Amino acid sequence: MIDLCKQHTMYTWAKGDAVDPIPVERAEGVYMYTPDGQRILDFNSQLMCVNIGHGHPKVIEAIKKQLEQLVYVYPGTATAVRARTAKLLSEIVPGDINTFFFTSGGAEANENAIKIARQYTGRHKILSRYRSYHGATEACMQLTGDPRRWANEPGGPGYIKVMDPRPYTYSFGETDEEKTAENLKYLEEVIMYEGPHTIAAMFVETVTGTNGVQPPPAGYLKGLKALLEKYGILLVCDEVMAGFGRTGKMFAFEHYDFVPDILTMAKGLNSSYIPLGAVGMSDKLAAHFQENVFWGGLTYNSHCVGLAAAEATIHVMRDEGLVENAAKLQHVMRSEMDRLQAKHPSFKEGRALGLFGMVDLQKNSKGEPMAPYNGAHPAMNELGKFFRDNGLFTFVRWGSFMCNPPLCITEEQLKEGFEIIDRGLEITDRAFEG
Amino acid sequence: MIDLCKQHTMYTWAKGDAVDPIPVERAEGVYMYTPDGQRILDFNSQLMCVNIGHGHPKVIEAIKKQLEQLVYVYPGTATAVRARTAKLLSEIVPGDINTFFFTSGGAEANENAIKIARQYTGRHKILSRYRSYHGATEACMQLTGDPRRWANEPGGPGYIKVMDPRPYTYSFGETDEEKTAENLKYLEEVIMYEGPHTIAAMFVETVTGTNGVQPPPAGYLKGLKALLEKYGILLVCDEVMAGFGRTGKMFAFEHYDFVPDILTMAKGLNSSYIPLGAVGMSDKLAAHFQENVFWGGLTYNSHCVGLAAAEATIHVMRDEGLVENAAKLQHVMRSEMDRLQAKHPSFKEGRALGLFGMVDLQKNSKGEPMAPYNGAHPAMNELGKFFRDNGLFTFVRWGSFMCNPPLCITEEQLKEGFEIIDRGLEITDRAFEG
Ligand SMILES: Cc1ncc(COP(=O)(O)O)c(C=O)c1O
Ligand SMILES: Cc1ncc(COP(=O)(O)O)c(C=O)c1O
Repeated sequence: MIDLCKQHTMYTWAKGDAVDPIPVERAEGVYMYTPDGQRILDFNSQLMCVNIGHGHPKVIEAIKKQLEQLVYVYPGTATAVRARTAKLLSEIVPGDINTFFFTSGGAEANENAIKIARQYTGRHKILSRYRSYHGATEACMQLTGDPRRWANEPGGPGYIKVMDPRPYTYSFGETDEEKTAENLKYLEEVIMYEGPHTIAAMFVETVTGTNGVQPPPAGYLKGLKALLEKYGILLVCDEVMAGFGRTGKMFAFEHYDFVPDILTMAKGLNSSYIPLGAVGMSDKLAAHFQENVFWGGLTYNSHCVGLAAAEATIHVMRDEGLVENAAKLQHVMRSEMDRLQAKHPSFKEGRALGLFGMVDLQKNSKGEPMAPYNGAHPAMNELGKFFRDNGLFTFVRWGSFMCNPPLCITEEQLKEGFEIIDRGLEITDRAFEG
Repeated sequence: MIDLCKQHTMYTWAKGDAVDPIPVERAEGVYMYTPDGQRILDFNSQLMCVNIGHGHPKVIEAIKKQLEQLVYVYPGTATAVRARTAKLLSEIVPGDINTFFFTSGGAEANENAIKIARQYTGRHKILSRYRSYHGATEACMQLTGDPRRWANEPGGPGYIKVMDPRPYTYSFGETDEEKTAENLKYLEEVIMYEGPHTIAAMFVETVTGTNGVQPPPAGYLKGLKALLEKYGILLVCDEVMAGFGRTGKMFAFEHYDFVPDILTMAKGLNSSYIPLGAVGMSDKLAAHFQENVFWGGLTYNSHCVGLAAAEATIHVMRDEGLVENAAKLQHVMRSEMDRLQAKHPSFKEGRALGLFGMVDLQKNSKGEPMAPYNGAHPAMNELGKFFRDNGLFTFVRWGSFMCNPPLCITEEQLKEGFEIIDRGLEITDRAFEG
């Protein structure tokens, strides 16, 4: 199985020779199992996407039912599952985001959000932030700030990258209020230089995901929305990763007292049971496309099976109180992180919002990261190997690692994960230089 | 149902106000059914994609079985279904195309083919043809020549469009041989001007789909492969539409005595039961990415459920002889087209390769198209309405319409479709100016 996969399939973001795939036979709840019976605790919901957990019988049942009813029809049709799921989404997304365009994944959702923004405003440029990942298609790679962009440059013109309120090496200020205020001044100056009338939209991950699990400082997103509105620039919140309960609210933007113009989704939308993405848009945008052709499409738009999985996933999240569970267990994750920080000198900082968590490790008491930006460190590799050998699945990247279990995890299982982490951090403690 | 879909979902390539969706309740074999019981003959396999027909019990069963076993794991794993399906594909794709990268659709397959070609060659430019459609993401829109590109310009730099051997208004020669020879000279001159060392790949639909169902003239593709090879330029065959039996061979390139470097697939790959696309690459490309990082990825790469559907679809195609059926019924489609041509003055030309068919209509005996390139004509709208009212689903575009039924269609059902078309053509005959 491993040999055939390595021989006949190409792996993502990797060199074939170096790939060491985890063999998986089945998965249930928060665990996955290898063919030789190893049980692995999923501490990353795979790619931060299986939010309700693995193999949920109700979602599987709903998919089966849809398969019996209707599998696929072309995008120009009306189907019951399309009507129901879009209506349900319009109910759960706050504000006036009531119209949805369905895709097969997150990158395609952002691609279509770019189209919508450009076609609506008649402007071309798009702002986004360096510390971001928005997908791997050509346009999304240009939205993305992450180093994975480099090998994919140049893409199209007009993608302008800006700084976060919390840059990597310097600071916009001491307090959250200062960071927000100074960053927004900086941003307004960028807008002035670029020409406000040339900018269609700004894309932000509501809570930055892969590039740090960084909740925004107080007031930033609300202030950003007001700033952009002043110039007729649309705000797109990419909640492909942060949406659907991950942060302890159904949508991450609900923490911050504003509503974006466009919301992009995927992953948690149906817990990745079937490929699906979506763009939600506000009523004013939807009204525009009542009278103007939308120049976009894809074969699998509004695919019945993906939509059936989304509908069932949303019901499961509600019925089982998974968003509430994520909010509740945030405090357990927080206190576990605090406990490990007090114990391990290499533990620099832990962040947790809902069950969206990340730990940064440091190599010295000056707080220098254990591995630099886009870099490696032997202790980090060893830590990754320790997690894998000890039955914990999560992502170790540069000088940090992720804590994003399925939202159905129990307090006990969460502690089980941190117990393995606790032992693993002895490795990075040994690499701590004092 | 219709109202909710119109209210809460955005339609593709359309103005919301003008959308008149077909309500669909269920579908089976070559028929779809509306909630009020109208039976509609699917003469376009939806978007030329449901090649095995609707609701096939074996594929549905295989999907259900996979759902019970394992639904989704992240791309860095090895799963049994990934191993089996990739192996199966390596067996059915001729030549040395043995390694596959899985995506969620056709556009993403082409996006990743661009990456593979650029990263392998270290060159940037991509050639493609005006009469083409390759998908709607930003890069694919630039590959595409079709007018749907216009509202999506400009994309990235380095996308060069060239002429087909059969342009719309002029000709490279009288015979197939002349067309091929002259077009390849033209192309070599373009390559000379662009700089061969700057060109990574050329994309072609092996048989042009939406832009005309145009099989290439004799010798063109084989000559093209040799020409490109001379300059180290990769040939990418986009068989998103033409692949998986549509042309009466499993892959369209099997008609033309050559093997491309890269083959992109989607649609027929699993008859669209679950969103899935794939890039197949030759051994030399695969070897390159054993030693060099592939800078691309997506959450739903190698999704278990989509792969299970593909595996079952390929088995169904083999067990039921669907490729052979398409080859056999080509002759029925051909003779039906000839019959209608003899009878209807507005019938200009019919093309059929396997069950890939299209009819061009003319408005006068000079052969001018009933509607111009990217244009409309009242008789064409009326014809579209007639088909719909009379229970025939197909695409009417500009001055042409499609004939692409599922490959499981019987001779009788095929004739049933042409009988409706026969009556419909009275409308365009009335618009024929003599
Ligand atoms: C914030 C964000 N946006 C977009 C994407 C791209 O989604 P997909 O991989 O489904 O194309 C991702 C994937 O990780 C993501 O985290
Ligand atoms: C030849 C060809 N390539 C690519 C695509 C794009 O595929 P998708 O719609 O799955 O993105 C299509 C879709 O019609 C196509 O016909």
